[in-house]
Amino acid sequence: MPHSKSVNRRIILSSRPVGVPTIDSFMLENFSVPAPSDGQVLLRTLYLSLDPYMRGRMSDVSSYAEPVAIGEVMVGGTVSRVEVSRHEDYHSGDLVLGYSGWQDYAISDGTNLTKLDDQAALHPSLALGVLGMPGFTAYMGLLDIGRPKAGETIVVAAASGAVGSMVGQIAKILKGCRVVGIAGGASKCQFVVEVLGFDACINRHSDDFPQQLAIACPKGIDVYFESVGGAVFEAVLPLLNVHARIPLCGQIAHYNDTGLPQGPDRLALLTRTILTKRIKMQGFIIYDDYGHRYGEFYQQMSAWLSEGRIKYREDIVDGLENAPEAFIGMLEGKNFGKLIIRIA
Amino acid sequence: MPHSKSVNRRIILSSRPVGVPTIDSFMLENFSVPAPSDGQVLLRTLYLSLDPYMRGRMSDVSSYAEPVAIGEVMVGGTVSRVEVSRHEDYHSGDLVLGYSGWQDYAISDGTNLTKLDDQAALHPSLALGVLGMPGFTAYMGLLDIGRPKAGETIVVAAASGAVGSMVGQIAKILKGCRVVGIAGGASKCQFVVEVLGFDACINRHSDDFPQQLAIACPKGIDVYFESVGGAVFEAVLPLLNVHARIPLCGQIAHYNDTGLPQGPDRLALLTRTILTKRIKMQGFIIYDDYGHRYGEFYQQMSAWLSEGRIKYREDIVDGLENAPEAFIGMLEGKNFGKLIIRIA
Repeated sequence: MPHSKSVNRRIILSSRPVGVPTIDSFMLENFSVPAPSDGQVLLRTLYLSLDPYMRGRMSDVSSYAEPVAIGEVMVGGTVSRVEVSRHEDYHSGDLVLGYSGWQDYAISDGTNLTKLDDQAALHPSLALGVLGMPGFTAYMGLLDIGRPKAGETIVVAAASGAVGSMVGQIAKILKGCRVVGIAGGASKCQFVVEVLGFDACINRHSDDFPQQLAIACPKGIDVYFESVGGAVFEAVLPLLNVHARIPLCGQIAHYNDTGLPQGPDRLALLTRTILTKRIKMQGFIIYDDYGHRYGEFYQQMSAWLSEGRIKYREDIVDGLENAPEAFIGMLEGKNFGKLIIRIA
Repeated sequence: MPHSKSVNRRIILSSRPVGVPTIDSFMLENFSVPAPSDGQVLLRTLYLSLDPYMRGRMSDVSSYAEPVAIGEVMVGGTVSRVEVSRHEDYHSGDLVLGYSGWQDYAISDGTNLTKLDDQAALHPSLALGVLGMPGFTAYMGLLDIGRPKAGETIVVAAASGAVGSMVGQIAKILKGCRVVGIAGGASKCQFVVEVLGFDACINRHSDDFPQQLAIACPKGIDVYFESVGGAVFEAVLPLLNVHARIPLCGQIAHYNDTGLPQGPDRLALLTRTILTKRIKMQGFIIYDDYGHRYGEFYQQMSAWLSEGRIKYREDIVDGLENAPEAFIGMLEGKNFGKLIIRIA
């Protein structure tokens, strides 16, 4: 839907969802395009990244980041073009990675803005996926917490997604591990094996999913890259080997939970497994914990990309106004690849 | 109870307990004292260590070690005197640390035997406590997994016990941390603060135990040294800070569990806490995981002991025949300090 260049459309959080978010949790508002002051730039959003962590920001419970306030623009990583610059470091036309959120335009004083280099500018949406937060999450979680070794078996939840797809490929490139994905549906599994090159991928919707996973991991699981929880984690738990490592970057199966599920209480089952199998389980939030290592990641991933060693898939939806529906679908696993809203 | 020098009393596992072990789980049998062959020694047990992990060996569920077979001698660390040696490395009268188990005599070919040095021989039971498995567990779990830093708050479960008492003292010696113990009863808490030098100790039997723990940890918890589980872990969980570390060496509150407790199911509550607070939780089994570092530990702990910087308390029970009752009491927290059976 084209729109006037004098209008800044913003999608705000209109109410906190209880359980599954609905379209009514969001509202599209029209504002005037703001004008930058001295030391500021006006940014035009080109691409908006939609990521599962945003569900957490919609809730008013303690988490690792402040919730979005009611009436505020939804947060989100963006690639933008500098429209007007009154900042000495930026020029009109520069492409930048930033956090404008779910809106057409934003003002910035340069804080948390990163200019895209020439390679990234050729395919700017990659700054939100392979070369951005999801790729960085995969790289650091796998290498710093998972620490895979040659000959080990790596299992990756949400294997066709933005993070999981990178985890498995990195484990194959660097260590030649056996890599088994878990994904929601046959076509995603086919993509994970045939395009991404995983050794196997199990459809979590299959009736005998736990049995299929066990068969695909005849030597057990040494690293489980966790972003899901729920039934996927349950199937993984009994297959974990002594000294298994679990990098934990998300829990998408639980983001819409409104309370604790019915019993039995398996808390002690998990801690007993961690004890008897001497497992390391560690949560991480990528920029907070590893921000200082972004340069190392970017250099390595750029090289792999230019060598054609990393495959990726983007799921691009046109139009800011479609962001709420796309986001709700993502929480149900309807996206296929890195979900990005193309805005301009 | 004195007994004939020609009789080897052995306490065997007579039946697998369901839930809490009883005296009927054990049986005392009389055998002839065996004679060593060439390359073997006959060992006379002086001290037998009783430790919570033995409860796991009584059960036939998969764990980190093989269960004791029905009819077999109960396992256990021991300090023994060489009575007869037909092994060139040992002489009659040598004191050795080994794994004779719950019996008066044992034959060994030298496998897993360690001669006590002059310092240890002065107080041989310490080889089962401060200088042995419990002290080593405290040292490696705290330093390699917990990695305390100056200014941090360390909480220690079972703080008057063989492991916990060392954890807190090491954290104070090396890093000057704020150390808060949790123990079962007022007299144990008094000992933990007044003798061991912890900053505070909370009685887990108090009605308002969680509130007291929160008050004792005004800056939250950075390292929780876990050996208990259950209500103690529940009180700790909401107090954990971002980047908290949880070395996990035991789960004594759960060793007698016969199934999972009633719900709600808090498994996802734990994983969510690990994620949002970026916690590292890691299980370990001391000799399997850190056996190669025993020398480093022994040297350091011996030095602290000879400098009088480490306090300890032993709970010594006389008589092999009293081991079952003492062991059952330990699972209920009735011991006060490192539980040791003095046999000869």
